[in-house]
Amino acid sequence: MRTCIAMFVAILFLSGCKQANQGLPSGKWIDLSHSFSEKAIYWPTAKSFELEVVSAQHTEGGYYYAANNFSAAEHGGTHLDAPIHFYEGRWTSDQIPVDRLIGAAIVIDASEKGLADRDFQFGEQDFLDWEANHGRIPDDSIVLLKFGYAQYWPDRLKYLGTDKTGEEAVAELHFPALHPDGAKWLVANRKIKAIGLDTPSIDYGQSKTFESHQILFKENIPAFENVANLDQLPATGAHVFALPMKIEGGSGGPLRIVALVPDQQ
Amino acid sequence: MRTCIAMFVAILFLSGCKQANQGLPSGKWIDLSHSFSEKAIYWPTAKSFELEVVSAQHTEGGYYYAANNFSAAEHGGTHLDAPIHFYEGRWTSDQIPVDRLIGAAIVIDASEKGLADRDFQFGEQDFLDWEANHGRIPDDSIVLLKFGYAQYWPDRLKYLGTDKTGEEAVAELHFPALHPDGAKWLVANRKIKAIGLDTPSIDYGQSKTFESHQILFKENIPAFENVANLDQLPATGAHVFALPMKIEGGSGGPLRIVALVPDQQ
Repeated sequence: MRTCIAMFVAILFLSGCKQANQGLPSGKWIDLSHSFSEKAIYWPTAKSFELEVVSAQHTEGGYYYAANNFSAAEHGGTHLDAPIHFYEGRWTSDQIPVDRLIGAAIVIDASEKGLADRDFQFGEQDFLDWEANHGRIPDDSIVLLKFGYAQYWPDRLKYLGTDKTGEEAVAELHFPALHPDGAKWLVANRKIKAIGLDTPSIDYGQSKTFESHQILFKENIPAFENVANLDQLPATGAHVFALPMKIEGGSGGPLRIVALVPDQQ
Repeated sequence: MRTCIAMFVAILFLSGCKQANQGLPSGKWIDLSHSFSEKAIYWPTAKSFELEVVSAQHTEGGYYYAANNFSAAEHGGTHLDAPIHFYEGRWTSDQIPVDRLIGAAIVIDASEKGLADRDFQFGEQDFLDWEANHGRIPDDSIVLLKFGYAQYWPDRLKYLGTDKTGEEAVAELHFPALHPDGAKWLVANRKIKAIGLDTPSIDYGQSKTFESHQILFKENIPAFENVANLDQLPATGAHVFALPMKIEGGSGGPLRIVALVPDQQ
């Protein structure tokens, strides 16, 4: 009799389990994207976002009608870097398979070092230290580096290190990012889907050769830049959905990136 | 002893189940988005998508570098209609809560009627007929109407009914969509998150007053237009993720929409 009850309980839970496995986990959705407006931060040499109002009024037909045109560089605001951005022959924005843009989030808090030193680069040893506390970065993760810079958005001086625009501003860029030795370690030792961070570029502000870009993009690992709200995610357990505008032949583009933080069970 | 084994098995499966409930269902990702290029279809009076190549070459620094600028109207290609597009005071593109853009897909195949009659409008009775076969549209669904027109993309004549541009082309638009009586029935009787379709507009080509837009948008129900690949989704069981470019104050914008079709269990 006891066996029967235990069996019954097992079957009951299993059938419930099967159903749940076809659904999404219940939890909270977090928007990791800054809005596009004329305040959105772009590279000092790039074309900024512009919105042109076509209509925002009641029409002769009696109904309200709003519509706009817009223009921008691909690489500004919360955006995708497609691998072709720094590596010939690698994926363009439209070629990245959808399942490389969705995965388990590994959120690495590097804000203490990043806020203390605007030229900080997150390297191999930093990954090893993080893993010593949180465990190995699983295959197919999306790694998100948090330097604490999203709090400065949209203040260009605090976020970029300079509020100038044009070529002269480039030498004055100071913000943290991924060290090339960290990029090398990641591609050689871990199997991640993509990487993101809350600063303007996967190479730090003072980079002249963009090595971290080249190392990652050679391996078709896309990057997400100017990501917001990483302070609302746990170190592990969230799911990331990073869906870029599907620009044919694009080197990047506007990215809507959100995360699902499952309820505690 | 048998009781112990049964209990053990139950606990084993339950712990596996808990883990799975925090994860995403395993399945296949389907991209429901057309690419943005100069071939992407826009409203005959709207500004089309343009890409300006800034760089696509090896630089003096020795590395390859690709970057582009782009411009477009908000309402073209696979895109979002934010409720403010046709209803003053309703949500702009950036104001729509993320959880309204993600949900269970209800895929309604209206391609037989839509392909037979370019002026077909899907109405209340069509919803009732669909429900008689498939069951009631659950709360918080995202309803996707399939008219079979994605197969015509990017042929403007077949897709829109005209390959002209400018004001004179508007009277020649012929494509199916949602009947205003269907929109009224939906908002009065069902509680959906959003609606999408594989034609250029939620009102049919010959509409002069855009009533379906007004009815839906008054209730803050966004629309997804020019959706692709709906023939790859089951009638029920898939999950939709529709993430638009986050344009501050936008009336719409480029939309990356994908679906997860869970494995059969």
